[in-house]
Amino acid sequence: MIELTLIGIGTGNPDHITMQAVRAMNAADLILIPRKGKAKSDLVDLRRDICAQVLNTPVRIVEFDMPVRAAQGDYTQAVHEWHNAIAAVWREQIALHLPDGGRLALLVWGDPSLYDSTLRIAERLSGVTVKVVAGITSIQALTAAHAIALNPLAGSVTITTGRLLRAHGWPNGADTVVVMLDGGCAFEALDPAGIAIWWGAYLGMAQEALEYGPLATVGPVIAARRAELRASHGWIMDVYLMRKEQNDG
Amino acid sequence: MIELTLIGIGTGNPDHITMQAVRAMNAADLILIPRKGKAKSDLVDLRRDICAQVLNTPVRIVEFDMPVRAAQGDYTQAVHEWHNAIAAVWREQIALHLPDGGRLALLVWGDPSLYDSTLRIAERLSGVTVKVVAGITSIQALTAAHAIALNPLAGSVTITTGRLLRAHGWPNGADTVVVMLDGGCAFEALDPAGIAIWWGAYLGMAQEALEYGPLATVGPVIAARRAELRASHGWIMDVYLMRKEQNDG
Ligand SMILES: C[S@@+](CC[C@H](N)C(=O)[O-])C[C@H]1O[C@@H](n2cnc3c(N)ncnc32)[C@H](O)[C@@H]1O
Ligand SMILES: C[S@@+](CC[C@H](N)C(=O)[O-])C[C@H]1O[C@@H](n2cnc3c(N)ncnc32)[C@H](O)[C@@H]1O
Repeated sequence: MIELTLIGIGTGNPDHITMQAVRAMNAADLILIPRKGKAKSDLVDLRRDICAQVLNTPVRIVEFDMPVRAAQGDYTQAVHEWHNAIAAVWREQIALHLPDGGRLALLVWGDPSLYDSTLRIAERLSGVTVKVVAGITSIQALTAAHAIALNPLAGSVTITTGRLLRAHGWPNGADTVVVMLDGGCAFEALDPAGIAIWWGAYLGMAQEALEYGPLATVGPVIAARRAELRASHGWIMDVYLMRKEQNDG
Repeated sequence: MIELTLIGIGTGNPDHITMQAVRAMNAADLILIPRKGKAKSDLVDLRRDICAQVLNTPVRIVEFDMPVRAAQGDYTQAVHEWHNAIAAVWREQIALHLPDGGRLALLVWGDPSLYDSTLRIAERLSGVTVKVVAGITSIQALTAAHAIALNPLAGSVTITTGRLLRAHGWPNGADTVVVMLDGGCAFEALDPAGIAIWWGAYLGMAQEALEYGPLATVGPVIAARRAELRASHGWIMDVYLMRKEQNDG
């Protein structure tokens, strides 16, 4: 029997880690850490650093190479096959390192519930019970860095992706929109009139970058800064919140 | 000069606390803890417990009585006046305990960015710089307890209130809806066909209660259980996630 705990580790700042995560990591028999290729090696390092910082009992740590998603073909199909491939690698590692069962932990960026596939991949394994430890998300890192509220007073919030924003525009009836997984600058597809934006990249990390203001003037600033940062670091992760002007108390 | 840090403490489980919160609490000169009347004394106790658990330096802790919001009259007006009254009490406490400035910390339930007024009240003070430390939200406690994803694969999420759900029904175009601040069972206003619900009350606390399933059959179960729990504990806090059926991978 395998007990698999998906542990949210926050989004770049090792101090995002919760006491619950610290306990779950120390209670594990095995922690699997994925290697994701050179460009994102900073992110693997963070997981190693967190292990070094919080483990006070001997827990076996094993690194494995993450399968790569097919760039061609149907998107949904490619994602399915990729998840199957990852599940297969986990099975292999479990057979190798926990042949008689035990507690396996995976460190998940941010919170395991938010735009992360780990839960869906875990469903592909049999004989495994899954537990989740929540972690600070990039949305929270964004609102904390700007010291702003997520929701307008008594209002609603829509969390969406760059892809959906580009395809459908400003979500119907939304007061506040948060955009994640934006490979470019999907906000450029909007009419910027009356929209304010709060943007953050590398949140919680040494490279953290923030911008905010009216979308009309700050949008181009963000686009330029994003391109620059991406070129100099080799990768970027960013998230932003947009609000339509309204009276708010 | 006052540096005010709003520290998210999670939603009932003291182990939700992050290392960042622990450090911020220990760095404070003064921690103000609001007393909110008898019904919610469990929640004051949690703040005391967290202080006892994480403080390893002498930090002054002062409790104060929270002003009460006017129940009559215009809602927005009442909220405004209430926030003014709270800001006035903070000013009083600052003048009393930090007359020469210093670091003030307030422990905020969940995350300070999510349906919480502390940031808006802080804006009413002058000569104060505000910092925010993110905390685990009740939404994250809900998805972790059920081990479910917040968003459907590549889809969007709408976070709203019981009041808005009742007034406007299922948000236009939403895949997943999270409802907070629901004084009753606003889901009863929806046509339940094709909707699944994941519900949680007292998340992270000893009284934690969970239900999930098709809204048509589980809705009435939740309504009954909610009434019972509310009667026996004297108060309730609950949150739920609903999804319309769709293929999800
Ligand atoms: C695959 S999702 C994972 C989200 C993660 N589970 C969370 O809780 O934030 C990756 C997206 O999260 C956002 N993101 C994650 N970490 C970030 C960071 N440190 N700074 C800015 N955005 C971040 C970006 O929008 C990125 O495209
Ligand atoms: C004023 S809001 C504060 C939310 C908080 N800042 C957060 O991050 O979750 C209060 C609402 O949060 C939800 N909530 C907070 N704590 C909860 C808990 N432990 N269990 C269930 N719901 C909770 C309920 O919907 C409640 O009406």
